[in-house]
Amino acid sequence: MKLQGFRGGRVVASFADPAAAWDDGAVAWAEGRIVYVGPAANAPDAEYTECAAGTLVTPGLVDAHTHAAWVGSRHDEFVRKMRGDDYREIAASGGGIKASARAIAAASEEEICAALAARLRRMAALGVTTVEVKSGYGLEPDQERKQLAAIAKVASYTDVPRVVVTFLALHAVPVAWADRRAEYVATMAALAAKVGRNKQANFADAYLDANAFSIDEGRAVLGAAKGAGLGIRMHIGQFQDIGGAKLAAELGAASVEHVEQLDDAGRRALAEAGVRVVLLPTASFVLNQAPPDVSALRAAGLRLVVASDANPGTAPTESLPLALALGVRLYGLTATEALAGATVEAAASLALGDTGTLHVGARADLVLWDLPHEYALLQPWGTSRAVRVFRDGQPLVGA
Amino acid sequence: MKLQGFRGGRVVASFADPAAAWDDGAVAWAEGRIVYVGPAANAPDAEYTECAAGTLVTPGLVDAHTHAAWVGSRHDEFVRKMRGDDYREIAASGGGIKASARAIAAASEEEICAALAARLRRMAALGVTTVEVKSGYGLEPDQERKQLAAIAKVASYTDVPRVVVTFLALHAVPVAWADRRAEYVATMAALAAKVGRNKQANFADAYLDANAFSIDEGRAVLGAAKGAGLGIRMHIGQFQDIGGAKLAAELGAASVEHVEQLDDAGRRALAEAGVRVVLLPTASFVLNQAPPDVSALRAAGLRLVVASDANPGTAPTESLPLALALGVRLYGLTATEALAGATVEAAASLALGDTGTLHVGARADLVLWDLPHEYALLQPWGTSRAVRVFRDGQPLVGA
Repeated sequence: MKLQGFRGGRVVASFADPAAAWDDGAVAWAEGRIVYVGPAANAPDAEYTECAAGTLVTPGLVDAHTHAAWVGSRHDEFVRKMRGDDYREIAASGGGIKASARAIAAASEEEICAALAARLRRMAALGVTTVEVKSGYGLEPDQERKQLAAIAKVASYTDVPRVVVTFLALHAVPVAWADRRAEYVATMAALAAKVGRNKQANFADAYLDANAFSIDEGRAVLGAAKGAGLGIRMHIGQFQDIGGAKLAAELGAASVEHVEQLDDAGRRALAEAGVRVVLLPTASFVLNQAPPDVSALRAAGLRLVVASDANPGTAPTESLPLALALGVRLYGLTATEALAGATVEAAASLALGDTGTLHVGARADLVLWDLPHEYALLQPWGTSRAVRVFRDGQPLVGA
Repeated sequence: MKLQGFRGGRVVASFADPAAAWDDGAVAWAEGRIVYVGPAANAPDAEYTECAAGTLVTPGLVDAHTHAAWVGSRHDEFVRKMRGDDYREIAASGGGIKASARAIAAASEEEICAALAARLRRMAALGVTTVEVKSGYGLEPDQERKQLAAIAKVASYTDVPRVVVTFLALHAVPVAWADRRAEYVATMAALAAKVGRNKQANFADAYLDANAFSIDEGRAVLGAAKGAGLGIRMHIGQFQDIGGAKLAAELGAASVEHVEQLDDAGRRALAEAGVRVVLLPTASFVLNQAPPDVSALRAAGLRLVVASDANPGTAPTESLPLALALGVRLYGLTATEALAGATVEAAASLALGDTGTLHVGARADLVLWDLPHEYALLQPWGTSRAVRVFRDGQPLVGA
């Protein structure tokens, strides 16, 4: 059993615990699992790579909300958004989700795999070791199956970040179903149940908003998903609060996402049900929206996650670190909220207890940064500062 | 004479000329200079690397305002800023410029070289082929000389972006000179003249603001610099408009930078004198400042440059593309203003006529992007989308 590790730099084992950090620390692992984390002085004998002075070792970042399996580019829309055009106007003119659905329909499964794998590798270079990836650009049942199959294939690769698969069952009504909305919802409920039974995804998700799907539609589809064993995530309150929080509580959802709009009763319902809140600062930055009321979320005792929302329209990004930089500046997140929100809380929202912190027995998902302190991770570098990135003890980036 | 190039992707020769772009374009160079740019159909015989479908070739980006020769980290200050502490309060408590001056004083010339070269290589990975680098963290004359010597050494490397050297003569009064301010200014004026005579820099710069240096102090130092042959750049109006624009016009400055605060008379003076305005969106984002009045700058007919302001305090970034993404969103820059501002206008502000556009005879400074269109360059990727980067026809990034 080969023991390897880092010794000599600053090691942060958990962003949720101020005591779990050592300026002269060490971490060691064997067979993909952490066997030691703590002061360098007590570290076991191992094949250590000495950290250069001024480096930092942390848990790998966990990006808990992405639509990363997209193909194509919506740069024309982006420039329209920058000029002030409304997201919903762009969608109504055939842009938005439907533009990405056309691109998915025109792509082969292999082309989707190639785009996703390349994107995940760029994410790894930024220090990300786990990525939630949603379907939802298929829209048509057959196209959703194709997108899910592509995600599943890439999820089997070991040279990309770990993939957690979410079936985004309700994203937009496809053009061909415009007059058969109820039938579409019933079809997607049946598909969600099938995806759950066949274990083709870990979670199901639905986009509930004034111009998207209703609470009742969400309940029909996500209830079926839950019955078939899927965990539940929900896009709620991006533009309007239509009561998604109550449904999330009712379904025991793992998380709700966006919540730019959320009332007091909604916050209480989420808190009582232990639902995590996933904040997506890059999307509200691109859309020029007011941030969610983070003080109220904090006061309600909600656990916060920060994610990239990587998608071709409202968050054309690949960077969870950029979302953190935007989150501390635009949302007023504290350093600890941001850093925990991109590691331990993100992992918990994905039901992963063995990543997001460095503890004995955890997966050896970790990053060596060319930075002296975790606070420097929050600066808007706009590029990767990760030097070496390991998933399950195997290098994704660096030798 | 070996002719090489790219053929088959979208080629944009100049962001200032909508006609200078071809969806099936080509660019060829020999001995570091462009010999052809235009439609692929007319391209000369050469050793072409075929562009993959969906790629884009553009001029290399030009970052016209950086303090990239810093050492150390000011992450504690960054977290204070995010909590709402004022930049000038942080400076008054020994942080800010003086913290970086302590780090420069403690570093060897070789350590400054190593930090700068590593940073420039990360900038190259983002598609940047020319970087203006200021001194200004030495403060003490001897330390300024050391920082300038380190910059000059790195400027001689051919495997980093081209470096344009600016002697930032007035940045802050060093602690030891606090009671001898006039003597400090006179000393720096003499040093500026010497740096100019010895051709140790291309430009001189001064930070003129309410809590920095006065117009008269700026005139003394920059006048001496100009007399010794240096071009002039000036930090003005970051916090308060104390009349720097009029001095810039008087001195025939190449550029003024920041201008979050600038009155109508100032804009007119700059326009009449043909002084370019360098916008620094990352700094005002970090400082949570209102943007400059871009509509008024535009109405005054001013030519706009966008730069990263890379520095350890107010813009702890390495990314010119991030500055563009912030500039279109927060400053309301058009796509053309942003893209021209990071290439042709930036190069012109540095008195470089042979980079920033692809034209016959220009330096072969160019980038192949994994993006289909220049608009996609403006999206907040937070990571590099440059696949191959050439300076003077030689690869900085990619084989």
